[in-house]
Amino acid sequence: MTGRVALALVHYPCVDRHGEIYATSLTNLDVHDIARSSRTYDVAAFYIVHSIAAQQDLARAIAGFWDERPLKNPDRKEALSRVKVVASVEEAVAAEAALVGRAPFVISTSAKAEGAELLPWEAASARMKGEASSLLLFGTGHGLAKSVLDLADARLPPIQGGSDYNHLSVRSAVAICLDRLLRLD
Amino acid sequence: MTGRVALALVHYPCVDRHGEIYATSLTNLDVHDIARSSRTYDVAAFYIVHSIAAQQDLARAIAGFWDERPLKNPDRKEALSRVKVVASVEEAVAAEAALVGRAPFVISTSAKAEGAELLPWEAASARMKGEASSLLLFGTGHGLAKSVLDLADARLPPIQGGSDYNHLSVRSAVAICLDRLLRLD
Repeated sequence: MTGRVALALVHYPCVDRHGEIYATSLTNLDVHDIARSSRTYDVAAFYIVHSIAAQQDLARAIAGFWDERPLKNPDRKEALSRVKVVASVEEAVAAEAALVGRAPFVISTSAKAEGAELLPWEAASARMKGEASSLLLFGTGHGLAKSVLDLADARLPPIQGGSDYNHLSVRSAVAICLDRLLRLD
Repeated sequence: MTGRVALALVHYPCVDRHGEIYATSLTNLDVHDIARSSRTYDVAAFYIVHSIAAQQDLARAIAGFWDERPLKNPDRKEALSRVKVVASVEEAVAAEAALVGRAPFVISTSAKAEGAELLPWEAASARMKGEASSLLLFGTGHGLAKSVLDLADARLPPIQGGSDYNHLSVRSAVAICLDRLLRLD
């Protein structure tokens, strides 16, 4: 049995192609795809992290769209009900801590290894089973800011597919990560 | 070493929510996400199957967009260069057969098991290593038409994530399938 698992899609602070800190725009299909993957792998909460109030409002509007049309697309409504909009990574960590009474095990992800100490996939999966709760962090743009990477307790390896190319969409990367960490069959 | 691997995203013939045959609309982000996943896992060709000429033209326009802007987004251009637009599943099968001199091993996918005979993931991965070429078929809408399922040599199990929910986006499903079948690390 695995402990509670949550994930966060971080729009700020991220780095741009020059390594500068910036906020990325919300992408509608990230919300839908990652909500559906989260529901499939029984991820209890999908935090959308954005520092800008108007983007937070947009995230809530996308996540709430099917609430007003419950009979038209009940599966989508169910997946989107796990979305929570927060202003910072710290707020997501605090929300998870409040739910289980202790800090979650925070795991960052990156398409780059950069000489960082990495927690292998099997070890991460085993560790999550023993934790009361775990929080997976995914970046947008050109990845998570160093301050977010530093805040995490561990970091997963980049996804290698057998080629030298590592430019997956974050939607695909989240799906693969959840399957590697939480697949049962 | 694995043999050549190709995949096809099928827009016709698919089934709608009532089980009737129909053609689905092309989705821009399917083209981009699946091209990026294909490049990551060294899938040699990504066939977009559509019966309608205007939708084929749209697929070519999306795939070719970065050709005219090669310096702006070279990684995306490289991924999209593997896209091939065809009018039918049979045309994709024939194109693969022409390339390697024999019919590809055709594998279908579905979110439903429906009492079908299923090839387990590990067995499919091993089988693909021994084949000169394999072609993975993914449906859109509510899935591949029975005629396409019947045309395949084997069928993969539905992706189970540890919950009772199996409504992944096709973008996420393709990413997970490729990782399960072709992951090296």
